Amino acid sequence: MDSIVSDHSLVERLELSWPVEQWQGLTVLVAVSGGADSVAMACALSVLAGRGKADLVLAHFDHQWREESAGDAHFVEKLAGQLGCKHVKGQAGQQGFQNEQEARQQRYAFLLEMARSEGARFVVTAHTADDQVETILDRILRGTGLRGLSGIPRTRVLDEGIVLLRPLLCCHKAELKEYLDELGQEWCEDESNLDTDFTRNRIRHQLVPLLKSEFQPSVEESLLNLAELAGQTQQFLQSHAGQLAERAVTVARDDQQQKVTIDLSALASVPPLLVREMLVEIWCQLDWPRQAMGMRQWNQLLEMIQDETTPSSQTFPGNVRVTRDEKKSGGQLKLTRRLENIETKD
Amino acid sequence: MDSIVSDHSLVERLELSWPVEQWQGLTVLVAVSGGADSVAMACALSVLAGRGKADLVLAHFDHQWREESAGDAHFVEKLAGQLGCKHVKGQAGQQGFQNEQEARQQRYAFLLEMARSEGARFVVTAHTADDQVETILDRILRGTGLRGLSGIPRTRVLDEGIVLLRPLLCCHKAELKEYLDELGQEWCEDESNLDTDFTRNRIRHQLVPLLKSEFQPSVEESLLNLAELAGQTQQFLQSHAGQLAERAVTVARDDQQQKVTIDLSALASVPPLLVREMLVEIWCQLDWPRQAMGMRQWNQLLEMIQDETTPSSQTFPGNVRVTRDEKKSGGQLKLTRRLENIETKD
Repeated sequence: MDSIVSDHSLVERLELSWPVEQWQGLTVLVAVSGGADSVAMACALSVLAGRGKADLVLAHFDHQWREESAGDAHFVEKLAGQLGCKHVKGQAGQQGFQNEQEARQQRYAFLLEMARSEGARFVVTAHTADDQVETILDRILRGTGLRGLSGIPRTRVLDEGIVLLRPLLCCHKAELKEYLDELGQEWCEDESNLDTDFTRNRIRHQLVPLLKSEFQPSVEESLLNLAELAGQTQQFLQSHAGQLAERAVTVARDDQQQKVTIDLSALASVPPLLVREMLVEIWCQLDWPRQAMGMRQWNQLLEMIQDETTPSSQTFPGNVRVTRDEKKSGGQLKLTRRLENIETKD
Repeated sequence: MDSIVSDHSLVERLELSWPVEQWQGLTVLVAVSGGADSVAMACALSVLAGRGKADLVLAHFDHQWREESAGDAHFVEKLAGQLGCKHVKGQAGQQGFQNEQEARQQRYAFLLEMARSEGARFVVTAHTADDQVETILDRILRGTGLRGLSGIPRTRVLDEGIVLLRPLLCCHKAELKEYLDELGQEWCEDESNLDTDFTRNRIRHQLVPLLKSEFQPSVEESLLNLAELAGQTQQFLQSHAGQLAERAVTVARDDQQQKVTIDLSALASVPPLLVREMLVEIWCQLDWPRQAMGMRQWNQLLEMIQDETTPSSQTFPGNVRVTRDEKKSGGQLKLTRRLENIETKD
């Protein structure tokens, strides 16, 4: 197979995206559903792994939400055999999932567990440029700031020494299928997403084609460029918010509670945008329920900081209690979350 | 008319958006095409002008691109009479316009000229939230960064002491028509935009309704919020880029040329995003042809700064000659545009 594969530009593009020197001699856990994208990635990575003397482990998670899923698991196991790599699998708990988000959490928990037990330094998933475009459109429609607009991140630290990577974000699904056709490699058609995320599927099958054919042929490139710029800008903002937090924020935790103190005098003459970003960072760092904070709640919180006529004490989603203390020099904002309440009050 | 009008919430919303204390006793030039939006704005402003002892001048620009346009001009003149305010009009030059952009330039040149001759401190136009949503969508589809994503600006300085303002960006067209219905006030139906900007009209009549009904009822709010955030972020970036320019950029002009010198040592360890923003600012300040600079050209210019292996001399659109001089301490980038060539080589 090597000779066909290595001539194909997909392998070269993958190598450009993720040079093999960066993972030479290491173990890489490859998330493979059995669908075209992940099968193509596994095949192309196996060529590069050969060059880089790296080890691939194909990891399949069976969501068990449709009858064919056992067949997919078997297919991935066979593929691992063909490519000469190890294979691990996991499956959903007996209760299954309430929704796509829960499925996602279980899937990533499985991947992390496997990465640990296999000693993998990288976990790679086969998200494509098409997935990125759909994600960005979905978020624009539903409402997003720059953080969301920047789309699916290319890398994310999963745990100490374990990095999640998406090396195919620069490739389109069509290229991946073309590559599989040239290889004569089969894949499993995945119908599950038709059930699991209706809006997302209509964005894929209806909205994106309409925008391309009726409005702007280059709309995908426009969205990918915008996401890139939004991501860079978000990083810039975050680094400034981080510097601000170093001056203004103190975090204390004990068994019962997490307690954040914000020195309001350090926020004078700081643009509201940056204060908001710093607040979001606090929520992220402490793993407070950020999704439950809408535009309205962030604005309420900002107002507590900027406007002394607002209530001096309010409770935010996830039972985050916020109190403004004006007696302290320059003023303080105290944010407290009791840990015992987290389970029940989220 | 006063009694009906002043009870209506539109007048109150307009006052919230642009408190009458900000223009008390001043002269305001109101751009009125004769369409529903601008007629509603003129009516509502005339109530507030009465309260604030301000003077309105209705300004109509006849594009002369359709037969009914003389009728529109007459309608606006009559409206001025009804509202008891002065009226001025202008019309397109004999050659007409090549395109919508040229029409826009002539229209704003007329408004500025009238503002000067009437001593108006404000020029107001009737852009609505709907116009804003369409602008943002149009730009997203065609490709934009944060600057474009922030949409139509609420205010812009036209000239010393003359500010362009769009106080209706928070109102929807439907509210404005409702207000006119309640007043029993007529307006001119404007069919011209069907001819002049085809994509824009399809965004209005096809895409926005589809997104609202089939994908996300709140999509307009999402886009307006995103634009607001993009605008705030862009300001933050620009203020940092401005500080960077103060350290790194020197501008010299004489009769023959504009010459910009960038001290490359001041750009070390500055994120590329900020360097790019600083470059865009240079183009804006010197009125160089920014539209002709695409993503590719900005990247080429950035590479000249960051990567010494790129060509040390290149010419960019509008005949901007860029040369890297590594002999100077820390390195310099020189950007030169000869004024004699501007007319012919743009």
